[in-house]
Amino acid sequence: MAAEGSLNLKGLAGYRWLENGQSILSGELLELYRRLDRLFLKWAGEERAKEYAFPPFIPARELDKLDYFRSFPHLVTFPAALDPDAKNLERFADGTPVDAEGSLHPSALGPIRDILTPAACYPFYIHFQGEALQGPRVVTTRATCFRREESYVPLERQWSFSMREIVCLGTAEEVKEFLKRSRDRIDRFLTSIRLPIEWREAADPFFRPTRNPKYLLQKLDPVKTEMVFQDRLAIGSLNFHRNYFGETFRISRGGEEAFSGCVAFGLERWIAAFLDRFGTHKESWPLREESRA
Amino acid sequence: MAAEGSLNLKGLAGYRWLENGQSILSGELLELYRRLDRLFLKWAGEERAKEYAFPPFIPARELDKLDYFRSFPHLVTFPAALDPDAKNLERFADGTPVDAEGSLHPSALGPIRDILTPAACYPFYIHFQGEALQGPRVVTTRATCFRREESYVPLERQWSFSMREIVCLGTAEEVKEFLKRSRDRIDRFLTSIRLPIEWREAADPFFRPTRNPKYLLQKLDPVKTEMVFQDRLAIGSLNFHRNYFGETFRISRGGEEAFSGCVAFGLERWIAAFLDRFGTHKESWPLREESRA
Repeated sequence: MAAEGSLNLKGLAGYRWLENGQSILSGELLELYRRLDRLFLKWAGEERAKEYAFPPFIPARELDKLDYFRSFPHLVTFPAALDPDAKNLERFADGTPVDAEGSLHPSALGPIRDILTPAACYPFYIHFQGEALQGPRVVTTRATCFRREESYVPLERQWSFSMREIVCLGTAEEVKEFLKRSRDRIDRFLTSIRLPIEWREAADPFFRPTRNPKYLLQKLDPVKTEMVFQDRLAIGSLNFHRNYFGETFRISRGGEEAFSGCVAFGLERWIAAFLDRFGTHKESWPLREESRA
Repeated sequence: MAAEGSLNLKGLAGYRWLENGQSILSGELLELYRRLDRLFLKWAGEERAKEYAFPPFIPARELDKLDYFRSFPHLVTFPAALDPDAKNLERFADGTPVDAEGSLHPSALGPIRDILTPAACYPFYIHFQGEALQGPRVVTTRATCFRREESYVPLERQWSFSMREIVCLGTAEEVKEFLKRSRDRIDRFLTSIRLPIEWREAADPFFRPTRNPKYLLQKLDPVKTEMVFQDRLAIGSLNFHRNYFGETFRISRGGEEAFSGCVAFGLERWIAAFLDRFGTHKESWPLREESRA
């Protein structure tokens, strides 16, 4: 399942790549992860964002309101458990739970009502649904996100990965100003450390894109602008959702459906870009401790 | 699925309980979560523990070596995804992905090779397998853990929850000394803040316990000592695994199978105990900022 990335991570202290498309971090790499997240959290603080910690499961019926399962069936991972009936558990336990290839052989499954969150910001719109906002609301969270892919690349494309998001809900103007400030802040920082990126319009990775009106709309009127490192790796994105979430989750602002937008940072991808640009030695990473929030 | 806890959390700022057996934290409760984890991390530092961040999935074949699926089939949650064949994805996307009850109706699933980790420390034994330790090794991690239960209680029994563990691998003597120091440290702290707990021997929640030799062995020679709050809530535990993991994962120390032990802290349960004992106001929580690691 693992594909080769452009980075040579073999033998790098504090790193291990797992066959299931995920990374183990320790030592200096874990410290880099923390410093990056403190930097993003400092930026969130400059927007007076309130921080939330959400659980990893989202109710399927909430994402269904966004037509998520028709748009991204290939990306979905859901938490399944055995039907708790004693006979069913016995059938599993007394059989061959795991075969020689390492595959689990579940007996009957219980109902599946949740999915493992594919992005950090969905829980906000669900959490705030039905609310009438009295002013712009800026919030932040870091989440382990899950996207099933056909192949994985260490740090760059993983089944589970970490995303920090700063989200603004408000009027169209408030959200656009938030995104403008965010982009300027990111540009200033990346210029100061000489990490070159290119801003590039993008669309979400829809299933059967040319048959999906949502994809066609995104192509006509882009909502996503990615920070692309080395012409190939999106280490983050700015997203203007218009009133899409406000409409679906009945969140209003000033008597109208709220607009929303977010800035998202892929932590493992930032680590990959740092290692590529600045090398594997802690001393050469341009993140001073002042970035501690 | 939700049962009533003894705590009244209704209307508590920064808290929301979800139907799927999980909690959302923000504001002062999230700050309490952070302060508690910094305290545990400070204790880990006193043991010179190296910190690791593991992904949430563990290969099923690794846990199968521990006979996990026969012992705890009722607790397992595994990440499932659709078979990526285009026709299979179409069948799902073009059908009714989510029914009126909020249940997902997956078409054919791809192979299931992982489970969502049920405890924070398993990844260590898997990560270190085959190693010959040159001295005692103390490590720490915080993980979101997953245990399917028949019913859930806010903060006290959740489908997903946070666990901080400090793990020692070494000789029997080294591990016993580590556990002794850990218990003394916890006792000193709890005495200082006047949070009463009782140490109580316990066994793991085996499926068909009386028919499982592992359970019977645990009853005869207990390996788990829990910190029990108010005669009902285990907010943590000390575990002496003997050479169980060393044997299974071929980890040696001084030419013999390594022994191991761990101290585990359930973060949401500590929050529950704090709210119960000290009230819901930040000012009355006995955690000074000196506990910042």
